[in-house]
Amino acid sequence: MKVFEIRDAFGLANLVPAERPVPEPGRRQVRLRMRAMSLNSRDLRLVEGLYNPKQPLPVIPCSDGVGIVDAVGEDVTRVKPGDRVATLSAQKWLGGPPERERLRTTLGSPLDGTLAEYMILDDDGVVVVPEHLSDVEAATLPCAGLTAWSALVTQGGVTAGDTVLVQGTGGVSIFALQIAVMLGARVIATSSSDEKLERAIQLGAWAGINYRENAAWGKQARKLTGGVGVDHVVEVGGGGTLEQSLWAVRIGGTVSVIGVLAGISTEVNLLPILMQNVRLQGILVGSRDGFEAMNKAIAQHKMRPVVDRVFPFVEAPAAFAYMGEGKHVGKVCIQIES
Amino acid sequence: MKVFEIRDAFGLANLVPAERPVPEPGRRQVRLRMRAMSLNSRDLRLVEGLYNPKQPLPVIPCSDGVGIVDAVGEDVTRVKPGDRVATLSAQKWLGGPPERERLRTTLGSPLDGTLAEYMILDDDGVVVVPEHLSDVEAATLPCAGLTAWSALVTQGGVTAGDTVLVQGTGGVSIFALQIAVMLGARVIATSSSDEKLERAIQLGAWAGINYRENAAWGKQARKLTGGVGVDHVVEVGGGGTLEQSLWAVRIGGTVSVIGVLAGISTEVNLLPILMQNVRLQGILVGSRDGFEAMNKAIAQHKMRPVVDRVFPFVEAPAAFAYMGEGKHVGKVCIQIES
Amino acid sequence: MKVFEIRDAFGLANLVPAERPVPEPGRRQVRLRMRAMSLNSRDLRLVEGLYNPKQPLPVIPCSDGVGIVDAVGEDVTRVKPGDRVATLSAQKWLGGPPERERLRTTLGSPLDGTLAEYMILDDDGVVVVPEHLSDVEAATLPCAGLTAWSALVTQGGVTAGDTVLVQGTGGVSIFALQIAVMLGARVIATSSSDEKLERAIQLGAWAGINYRENAAWGKQARKLTGGVGVDHVVEVGGGGTLEQSLWAVRIGGTVSVIGVLAGISTEVNLLPILMQNVRLQGILVGSRDGFEAMNKAIAQHKMRPVVDRVFPFVEAPAAFAYMGEGKHVGKVCIQIES
Amino acid sequence: MKVFEIRDAFGLANLVPAERPVPEPGRRQVRLRMRAMSLNSRDLRLVEGLYNPKQPLPVIPCSDGVGIVDAVGEDVTRVKPGDRVATLSAQKWLGGPPERERLRTTLGSPLDGTLAEYMILDDDGVVVVPEHLSDVEAATLPCAGLTAWSALVTQGGVTAGDTVLVQGTGGVSIFALQIAVMLGARVIATSSSDEKLERAIQLGAWAGINYRENAAWGKQARKLTGGVGVDHVVEVGGGGTLEQSLWAVRIGGTVSVIGVLAGISTEVNLLPILMQNVRLQGILVGSRDGFEAMNKAIAQHKMRPVVDRVFPFVEAPAAFAYMGEGKHVGKVCIQIES
Repeated sequence: MKVFEIRDAFGLANLVPAERPVPEPGRRQVRLRMRAMSLNSRDLRLVEGLYNPKQPLPVIPCSDGVGIVDAVGEDVTRVKPGDRVATLSAQKWLGGPPERERLRTTLGSPLDGTLAEYMILDDDGVVVVPEHLSDVEAATLPCAGLTAWSALVTQGGVTAGDTVLVQGTGGVSIFALQIAVMLGARVIATSSSDEKLERAIQLGAWAGINYRENAAWGKQARKLTGGVGVDHVVEVGGGGTLEQSLWAVRIGGTVSVIGVLAGISTEVNLLPILMQNVRLQGILVGSRDGFEAMNKAIAQHKMRPVVDRVFPFVEAPAAFAYMGEGKHVGKVCIQIES
Repeated sequence: MKVFEIRDAFGLANLVPAERPVPEPGRRQVRLRMRAMSLNSRDLRLVEGLYNPKQPLPVIPCSDGVGIVDAVGEDVTRVKPGDRVATLSAQKWLGGPPERERLRTTLGSPLDGTLAEYMILDDDGVVVVPEHLSDVEAATLPCAGLTAWSALVTQGGVTAGDTVLVQGTGGVSIFALQIAVMLGARVIATSSSDEKLERAIQLGAWAGINYRENAAWGKQARKLTGGVGVDHVVEVGGGGTLEQSLWAVRIGGTVSVIGVLAGISTEVNLLPILMQNVRLQGILVGSRDGFEAMNKAIAQHKMRPVVDRVFPFVEAPAAFAYMGEGKHVGKVCIQIES
Repeated sequence: MKVFEIRDAFGLANLVPAERPVPEPGRRQVRLRMRAMSLNSRDLRLVEGLYNPKQPLPVIPCSDGVGIVDAVGEDVTRVKPGDRVATLSAQKWLGGPPERERLRTTLGSPLDGTLAEYMILDDDGVVVVPEHLSDVEAATLPCAGLTAWSALVTQGGVTAGDTVLVQGTGGVSIFALQIAVMLGARVIATSSSDEKLERAIQLGAWAGINYRENAAWGKQARKLTGGVGVDHVVEVGGGGTLEQSLWAVRIGGTVSVIGVLAGISTEVNLLPILMQNVRLQGILVGSRDGFEAMNKAIAQHKMRPVVDRVFPFVEAPAAFAYMGEGKHVGKVCIQIES
Repeated sequence: MKVFEIRDAFGLANLVPAERPVPEPGRRQVRLRMRAMSLNSRDLRLVEGLYNPKQPLPVIPCSDGVGIVDAVGEDVTRVKPGDRVATLSAQKWLGGPPERERLRTTLGSPLDGTLAEYMILDDDGVVVVPEHLSDVEAATLPCAGLTAWSALVTQGGVTAGDTVLVQGTGGVSIFALQIAVMLGARVIATSSSDEKLERAIQLGAWAGINYRENAAWGKQARKLTGGVGVDHVVEVGGGGTLEQSLWAVRIGGTVSVIGVLAGISTEVNLLPILMQNVRLQGILVGSRDGFEAMNKAIAQHKMRPVVDRVFPFVEAPAAFAYMGEGKHVGKVCIQIES
């Protein structure tokens, strides 16, 4: 079977095709004939050697994928051949709180990932996806979708009447927008581009703020809520945006810390956190229980993830390069032609 | 009646006695004949002009006190003359989440505080205190006690089997130690002094770390928990200690941000928050519901707050000066001789 | 001013008009010039002597109403003259869990209720209503609306992807339907009439079950969910319907016990509760915090309560009689012509 | 290896020794050399044909046991040979809420149980036990211990200051007593015997009520709490005691429905549930996450389960017979001599 692996050294030039034998499932394992993958910034940073420089090579990147179960080992009861399933990115995080053991078993580093024609996974590590989604749409769920769900639902308790602020139009932010709308909440989106804000409005956002034109977007968000502040900020910018997020959030509100794109280490004024009773909550993907709850909601609402562009499997490196340009709205995906 | 007020200008020299008429309660108000007060760092910082420089003067400082209800207005049903009650520091925060309106009504700035022979309060703004406590002990509850309770219980969900780390031996930290023990949790205390650590052990702490001798106390705490990390850190040092707190806390754990003694603004590495799914939770006192729940627990356990030293009412300024020295273990209090 | 009071004895014939002096607000009180009221089955049962036979007479019935603040006493800060507010039915339940003291202060028994041209209430006991609602629509919120909100949100945690079953088309059930839809949940409605089910579908229900044609509606509901069972049942029938509700609900699901119309005491098989890990949760109105959260959601969604019929104030007894016929879909209301 | 199985027909006379081959672990499986078992009323009812009359025979009864891992299959990482582990009674319930799939995989019906010299289990289905416990003590945890923990902690949120009522001195009730004490709560125990009440007091109960002498024990419990009612009742009697439990519990309190010893079907007055905002919560064992959290607490507190009597493995049927007499305080256990 064909796979893409990072060979010899990090760097996009070293993400190359390889041939491996088709694996056989053991007891409680399933084999997936893969159909589609989606990319996350973590995958790109892995390839570039920034995510986990100690990762032994070669490794097959990517944590997110969708495939058809085409062989099962003994004692497999959760799924059966023919089921269309997504990968669980933290293979051992089935439910409950995060724990070290649960977070260690992530696909696409340290474990081999989804950029392959076939995969073997434990039956516990796959999740049947909603029928109304295309393969590519379903492949966006394992990281970006579940992270947004964990932030807003599992750890956020967002509900009807709340106001949620999402930053930009990357994968997690767009999912957060769409999930917040499903929850009955009101969404404020920020972006550097009026065109992208228009897109956010089409997806259900209540208001948009262009942060190029309005550097103090946190205060602007607060103003939009009548001076009260938003209930929940999905913070994907890290150090570069946290100060404004703290301006935006209401007393007793939550800032979900998801990405650190704009800076890992930062000068933070703790006083507003203290004086406003604010919660800063780190969010790291989520569990299978969360994935299944999200799927139930997505299926009921016939929600469709936003796919920016789809690359054929053989052009996987081009997908990573495109991802690196940062122009996408929603998810960058890869599809295996059948 | 006699009061102490900050007159003309901030500074301890301007905390002076004054004479005011004994007030009469209106509808739904009660009058308290005050018996004892306790000091918080906020009170000291108010006097020094650091907490709220815009506070109009004169103002009577202090949010915490205990008195006897000696007169009631119409329609008062919650308490009756003779009841011994504590003040609720945020007078309008009766229950539920914090909100701006609820936090605006704090005694001892912006409202006149407890450093007076008599006070008028709404009947909603007082709480009957546990019988087994002395007046002075009960006067320590409204801020330091309730803040620790809010951190560990209302917003923390600490339970039997958890490990809680408390920093130093100030008022909130000692309360957090004692409350964590009541909850069945295990406590690690840090201090710069072996003598104070010894005191913490006597109060029920499971282990102590001298941070003078062990600057990397966060790692040491993690080691004490078998490498897992503590479930909850009660962070009172702010910027100066947060980095170690993030070393100490487990994946999915909580750091309650309570004080910012050691620095308000700080370089924070957000990566551990994100990658460890950590929650940073600002804590600002708490509601009357929390106060009453705490009192129920304190009464059942016959728990006694730790009072470092008691000053007579007429020597109130000396109490502030002593507080400023930072040598206390537990609370600094003031008592009105009857 | 004109009021309606139950005079001399219970019974609809004794619900008669009376003249009382216009009251003046004291400290922290407001006077409302009433605009509209809504009826609940509790109000009808009070008039009939079934709800609280020991209630001293005369008493003004009804807990729900909307009025304009037209005079305020000293120290009123929450509202101002001209504000349009609803009554809080449990006047002292501002937030947090229910407690005896909080539940004792209900309007329309034991306290005088809303069926009057003017009312005096504590400023704590009123809630500003969403602007887009008519007076009559807003008057439906205090009991029926808040009870449904408490069941599904405050105590229910219903979220997107959940399935909620509501029984019939009475006030609380219709609110539960509309609120569940706001929360992103899917609703199954039951009724004895296909016409009413059609109405429920128009209001957003996903499916309807005619329980006349399908006595085993609990199993039918379970079937509709693929055999899993619904997440939440809003049980308003009491003993007469509980058995079917327990068939309908999923393992680990919740049955909110709200009304006991069809029988107070009943033979219940506890085994399904135990073996299915089911929660039976009694629901008694809710707090002001819940009311305000609900209003935020209703305002955002421009949700409009369903009013079946409006009677003029002078014909209040006719409204009670109509309520007793049980033909309504949504709420029966009373309006004061200005 | 030796096992006990129910052969040919239900009834204690048919619980007989048998010889089976020692099994070998497959991928992700472990083999336990069993050391001890504990009995639950469910086990006795299974043998008597009352629990699951459709259970195919022969079957090895008992869900609870402790053994030493003595062989492991491929890919086992959670435990290693030499570890001392307990069985998870619902083998697939690792965390999160109960679900049908999770509850179907219970040891001792439908699956073969622990009454055997060796067992094969998935590595997911075992839990390392606290070191300070004897084998027999540790064998009491999987059902009785975890059920009490789930009732009070996972689904109960009991905390310091609460009052918990436990009924009788059976396995779950004694665990509930001990766990409530660890949580900092106050316990009222009921029993038909003053001697057993004395024992409960020794174990940390705050008060005891002899229900033989005081049939209205619910009112008595309420009286002991100053008329407020207890926060939590651990209901093990089912229909026979529920009415008194509803008298005992406070407004907004919880009754955990655990056993139905005294009657499955019962006339229940729903009115108090409704009017007092009471929660009736069915409790069915619990998940591995709960088991591990409980173990952490038990280890910290060096808590020791109460073992009434230990039978040697070869006399297992006598243990069941003794269990049937109902004289025990705490758990009836079985031990394999090494």
